[in-house]
Amino acid sequence: MREVYIIGIGQTPIGEQWELSLRQMAVRALKAAVADTGAPDLQPQALYVGNMLAARLNDQAHLGALVADYAGWRGIEAATVEAACASGGAAMMAGVRAVASGLADVVAVCGVEKMTEATSSEVTTGLATAADADYEVAHGVTFVALNALVMQRYMYEYEVPHDNFGIFSLNAHQNAVNNPNAMFRSPITLDTYRNAPMIAPPINLYDSSPICDGAAAVILAPLEIARDLPGVIPVRVRASASATDSLNLDDRHDLLALSAARLSARRAYDQAGLSPADIDLFEVHDAFSIMAALSLEAGGFAPRGEGVRFAHEQGIGLDGRLPISTMGGLKARGHPVGATGVYEIVDLVTQLRGQAGKNQVANATIGMTQNIGGTGATVVTHILSVE
Amino acid sequence: MREVYIIGIGQTPIGEQWELSLRQMAVRALKAAVADTGAPDLQPQALYVGNMLAARLNDQAHLGALVADYAGWRGIEAATVEAACASGGAAMMAGVRAVASGLADVVAVCGVEKMTEATSSEVTTGLATAADADYEVAHGVTFVALNALVMQRYMYEYEVPHDNFGIFSLNAHQNAVNNPNAMFRSPITLDTYRNAPMIAPPINLYDSSPICDGAAAVILAPLEIARDLPGVIPVRVRASASATDSLNLDDRHDLLALSAARLSARRAYDQAGLSPADIDLFEVHDAFSIMAALSLEAGGFAPRGEGVRFAHEQGIGLDGRLPISTMGGLKARGHPVGATGVYEIVDLVTQLRGQAGKNQVANATIGMTQNIGGTGATVVTHILSVE
Repeated sequence: MREVYIIGIGQTPIGEQWELSLRQMAVRALKAAVADTGAPDLQPQALYVGNMLAARLNDQAHLGALVADYAGWRGIEAATVEAACASGGAAMMAGVRAVASGLADVVAVCGVEKMTEATSSEVTTGLATAADADYEVAHGVTFVALNALVMQRYMYEYEVPHDNFGIFSLNAHQNAVNNPNAMFRSPITLDTYRNAPMIAPPINLYDSSPICDGAAAVILAPLEIARDLPGVIPVRVRASASATDSLNLDDRHDLLALSAARLSARRAYDQAGLSPADIDLFEVHDAFSIMAALSLEAGGFAPRGEGVRFAHEQGIGLDGRLPISTMGGLKARGHPVGATGVYEIVDLVTQLRGQAGKNQVANATIGMTQNIGGTGATVVTHILSVE
Repeated sequence: MREVYIIGIGQTPIGEQWELSLRQMAVRALKAAVADTGAPDLQPQALYVGNMLAARLNDQAHLGALVADYAGWRGIEAATVEAACASGGAAMMAGVRAVASGLADVVAVCGVEKMTEATSSEVTTGLATAADADYEVAHGVTFVALNALVMQRYMYEYEVPHDNFGIFSLNAHQNAVNNPNAMFRSPITLDTYRNAPMIAPPINLYDSSPICDGAAAVILAPLEIARDLPGVIPVRVRASASATDSLNLDDRHDLLALSAARLSARRAYDQAGLSPADIDLFEVHDAFSIMAALSLEAGGFAPRGEGVRFAHEQGIGLDGRLPISTMGGLKARGHPVGATGVYEIVDLVTQLRGQAGKNQVANATIGMTQNIGGTGATVVTHILSVE
């Protein structure tokens, strides 16, 4: 087992990418990540692609070989890794493991999703495949509605008014203003949040992340390669851990615990020899604002039921106790589902390198990402640091 | 890097599994694999699921967490690995790497596919996602038709009459007779082959593997665990390698080379320190008989253009120079696409343990499997041995 470093990051802007095909988006992100290493001829030995929906929305499976070929790397090992909306994080884990084991030196990881060419009905039924087809979706419930059940229960159980969740959306939109790759670059007010159209009560439009296209990529390598790249600030992968829970909500032992996030975070802290107090910023999976609140609790930053209060009292802004969604998060940067886990890594690396511009978190040396699949059935946690 | 051993195998019969759901098939194979270790309480730390079509045909993605939960392993790391029809082999690779790296001790790998609940149109368009959606499928070509183009070219280039390919189908059907898990357990004659209905010329019904349901599973562990299991004949993973090529046939540098199979086999031989002469039996990916012929060449067993001649002259039967499809292969055992790579491993382990009954290959100590995705865009090769 050897240490793994991130030596290059790349991304496409998130939004409606009418001018780029699925493969073109992936290749653009990968080329940017290779260029970012300062060694343009670097060729990875393996590629892992995180993707959830291409087989349904783009009629294209087999993305590993396809993207490897169009990136100019025909012949290398390649595969797609899928864990619903945690596909990007799961692909990152596969990449980390390939380098850590010594079976590969340079490995590329790419998350890609192209959702906007499909109809909203196709997207809705596609996203529902993250939930239990036999015991949830068969009853007609959508993926938003499942998250709404969790939010409703949270509001009831802990007596949190809906308005109090607005802080997550306001923070994400504020941070996206300065991110040229973000989908929504305008700030919103609490009134905007409060008066937004309802999607599935109590989840409204501003509690929800958007349907969009995007691709993000990272290049991984061991220290001996990282330190030979003069222009690179190597970011070390301190932990790469995953955990699972039941897909169907009704079968959870505890609806509000987000158990897989707790378990995944605990495994990551154990791997890194760190605790929540060591984390300078946290890229959360704010696909819905309820998930941001639950992640703060599951990550060990706030006691149970106090995730929303933590955001208000301790601060989640760029100068708060724990900055989250620092480049806009899933809410405003965007949530191209299978790519999101890799975007989280890219955003965190940008911060740890001190390259986040107006959004730079001061003294950011250790950060965490959490990528959630389904309503919490797969959760992948990464902890990264600069040394 | 440590050595990896297969300590348990399990499978469901292949066919139309009306009485079992997708998750039930996967769990049945996994439970059988755990029972096979002789340690029924063994709990893996990670599960990799090979699957290609469930998101389209069963409206169910996120199989890693789902299957882990229903197997009774809620909480463990889990993900789905996809590389079209090579998904099972790619999942096996992920499992091998997890144990080899030391990041996990006991790992479960499961391949599962449930195709027969869908209409044939859904299956045909589903299988076509293994090919290039933009440059092949957009023209209306099916996956069978793409393989037919390769077969047609092979027959023309090397002047091989169609009848000569019958040996692959006859061998597979003959071997399936004694496999209780095989789909087609009746032998066929050359006349049956010759007079079969045409699917996509020159591919006829008996050149093609069937649409079917099935699940297969293996349990992996390092030597220190394997040697403490008294009832287990540990089978060692000598090589686990993958390679890629273009998805679209028209972009291949050489239509008949099956380059990814060559590259993947070479990487595997290098890992194992072995050559084709050391291989006692070969579980080939005979989804179409042309692929069996090309695999014999790409694996280094026959010179270019002489795969069919090799079968006739050297022998591919149980007592031939190189037994292939020893339990019926994809042709007659069956080809539940995302599960096939794991079935190949299970069949080979059965042979290496000396548990293949009437189909036992004498003195089988080293064997190889090859799992092909698309028309050869991803190829995963494993070499296993008993010591």
